[in-house]
Amino acid sequence: MPETVASSAWVDLPDSSCIKPLQWVGGLDGYIEMIDQTKLPNTLVYIDCRDPETVFAAIQRLSVRGAPAIGIAAAMGLVLGVRDFSGSDPAAFVARVDEVAEYLATSRPTAINLFWSLDRMKRCAASLSRESSPSVGDMKSGLLREAIAIRDEDARSCRAIGQFGASLIPEDGAVITHCNAGSLATAEYGTALAPMYAAHDAGKKFTVYVDETRPLLQGARLTAWELTRAGIDTVLICDNTAAHLFKQDRVQLVITGADRIAANGDAANKIGTYGLAVLAKAHNIPFHVAAPSSTFDFETLCGDDIPIEERHPDEIRRGFGTLTAPEDVACYCPAFDVTPASLIDGLITEQGIIAPVTSERIRQVLRF
Amino acid sequence: MPETVASSAWVDLPDSSCIKPLQWVGGLDGYIEMIDQTKLPNTLVYIDCRDPETVFAAIQRLSVRGAPAIGIAAAMGLVLGVRDFSGSDPAAFVARVDEVAEYLATSRPTAINLFWSLDRMKRCAASLSRESSPSVGDMKSGLLREAIAIRDEDARSCRAIGQFGASLIPEDGAVITHCNAGSLATAEYGTALAPMYAAHDAGKKFTVYVDETRPLLQGARLTAWELTRAGIDTVLICDNTAAHLFKQDRVQLVITGADRIAANGDAANKIGTYGLAVLAKAHNIPFHVAAPSSTFDFETLCGDDIPIEERHPDEIRRGFGTLTAPEDVACYCPAFDVTPASLIDGLITEQGIIAPVTSERIRQVLRF
Repeated sequence: MPETVASSAWVDLPDSSCIKPLQWVGGLDGYIEMIDQTKLPNTLVYIDCRDPETVFAAIQRLSVRGAPAIGIAAAMGLVLGVRDFSGSDPAAFVARVDEVAEYLATSRPTAINLFWSLDRMKRCAASLSRESSPSVGDMKSGLLREAIAIRDEDARSCRAIGQFGASLIPEDGAVITHCNAGSLATAEYGTALAPMYAAHDAGKKFTVYVDETRPLLQGARLTAWELTRAGIDTVLICDNTAAHLFKQDRVQLVITGADRIAANGDAANKIGTYGLAVLAKAHNIPFHVAAPSSTFDFETLCGDDIPIEERHPDEIRRGFGTLTAPEDVACYCPAFDVTPASLIDGLITEQGIIAPVTSERIRQVLRF
Repeated sequence: MPETVASSAWVDLPDSSCIKPLQWVGGLDGYIEMIDQTKLPNTLVYIDCRDPETVFAAIQRLSVRGAPAIGIAAAMGLVLGVRDFSGSDPAAFVARVDEVAEYLATSRPTAINLFWSLDRMKRCAASLSRESSPSVGDMKSGLLREAIAIRDEDARSCRAIGQFGASLIPEDGAVITHCNAGSLATAEYGTALAPMYAAHDAGKKFTVYVDETRPLLQGARLTAWELTRAGIDTVLICDNTAAHLFKQDRVQLVITGADRIAANGDAANKIGTYGLAVLAKAHNIPFHVAAPSSTFDFETLCGDDIPIEERHPDEIRRGFGTLTAPEDVACYCPAFDVTPASLIDGLITEQGIIAPVTSERIRQVLRF
């Protein structure tokens, strides 16, 4: 009964006003319904993915982006790639799973969740093959269950972040966020935006100032879109306007996401996050980072050890399809910066809020 | 001999690699040759203005912008509007001068230099009419001389700012600037960029990081263009990247311009300047403001009394001819912010560098 596999997995998640970037529709013969994020904010278009090639292409052209969302898409894409396997030999089926996983893993190089998620699917297939008298049909259903579990665990993790963080949101006040660490980057609900959705769902009134987030405008294109759609009072600003808002006492809180958090609590996130943290500190405004425990990298001792990707100058010079700078002017275009733990008042995780941000407290709360 | 009027006024200004946004070409029968700044950085197009209507339109559509440059354009535009006066009555000629000045003053509402410059031209006409047996022909030549004097005084003022500020530029180091307070905003050489031109002309090697300056990208479109054209090592950055550069010790100085400086030294400038000043202070990097004494407003006691213009949301939502945010999302789009004197290490004026920045020191240096 593959149909019940898919539908039962959804029941314990409460309804929310937030958008879901991708879902599995139907049973084992179903498909992935995915928002094409490259068309946002102008048009809400869904893509139906019925084979792994379509999923591969969607990940590659950023129709789905955000580390957790990419991991979910890959897991579901793997199911699409193995469900038509016509043999009955469990070992041959496991080999097919590995092959499709290998293929999907080459869709993007950086997001750690992509590899983590595909590894988990491969381990699941191997484990199912070791059960007594395994049938390939049951293994297919088991893999669909696992893919949906990956999605639902991420959704629950985001909910938990939301519940822990909601009390921080100032009633009748305002919060600033940077980039998109929202529903669109996860199963639903997001990380940095989760406390805002939770507070909104609980009836709290507040304003979210959204940094547009140059150069790729994830704040303007994605965060402003999903927050306004959810009915949350949203005001878009240029990145350079946050300090002026702080000075006028118009903001009481900053929450951003993170791409990687070192063992000591230093957090890498979208370029501009560090400056926002320094400005918040200078104005005595609490600065929090929201991320699931999977974002913590205990192999990396401190922020200095996190490599910073540099992007192509044209993201600045031609960011909007128009040349807005001298064609050949040099640009410095780092994708990320690192905010030291000393500037972070709390790390909002699905296990609770880590504050103060120290190596010891991180290990205590996350039980590492 | 109107030809000599025009050419003689240029002799004592040294050559520079910097661009001139507008010049008077020829004698009394000449014209204004003006860069159409709306076409930058893609195309360098000059507009020839031979009547006041063309000047009016050029100011209105921002082909010429920057308070000093607008004042110069208006003064020269006034000459274009009165040179064909066919009567011989000095009083009637003065009335015509007032009429054309009245017309040009309505081209833009804010820039104080526009009104200051036209008032000076009117006073000049009135004064010439009081000379013994004035001829209208001599009065016309006198007005052209005055317009060119306004331009040349601004150019000299910018040179002086450059000379005073050049020693601050770090040899083999880097400086950040925000918006465009360069040649294009003045007669030539600029205010914030003047110390960089002066240091470059003196053979110093350094890098200028240019904030692109959202939403209207004056940094990307104008500053990056004029600095690269002058052969100065230029690196364009998103506004949110300055803090990351400071953290890496890659910058030793910040210089910006100002739109108005209050009696206590608080300075209004393009949105983003205040945040840059806070970030500079947090990293112990000197922050200077360069402006001529005409930018000081002794009627305004402190920055809180400076009104902040709010711009249309579409400057953020559709800044590049493309919709990059939800169509109806609210935006907060102040054109300026105010940097308190306490964050400014020095005010670079044509009279010298004012440091520390206090009311007393300002009055001393500017002799008010």
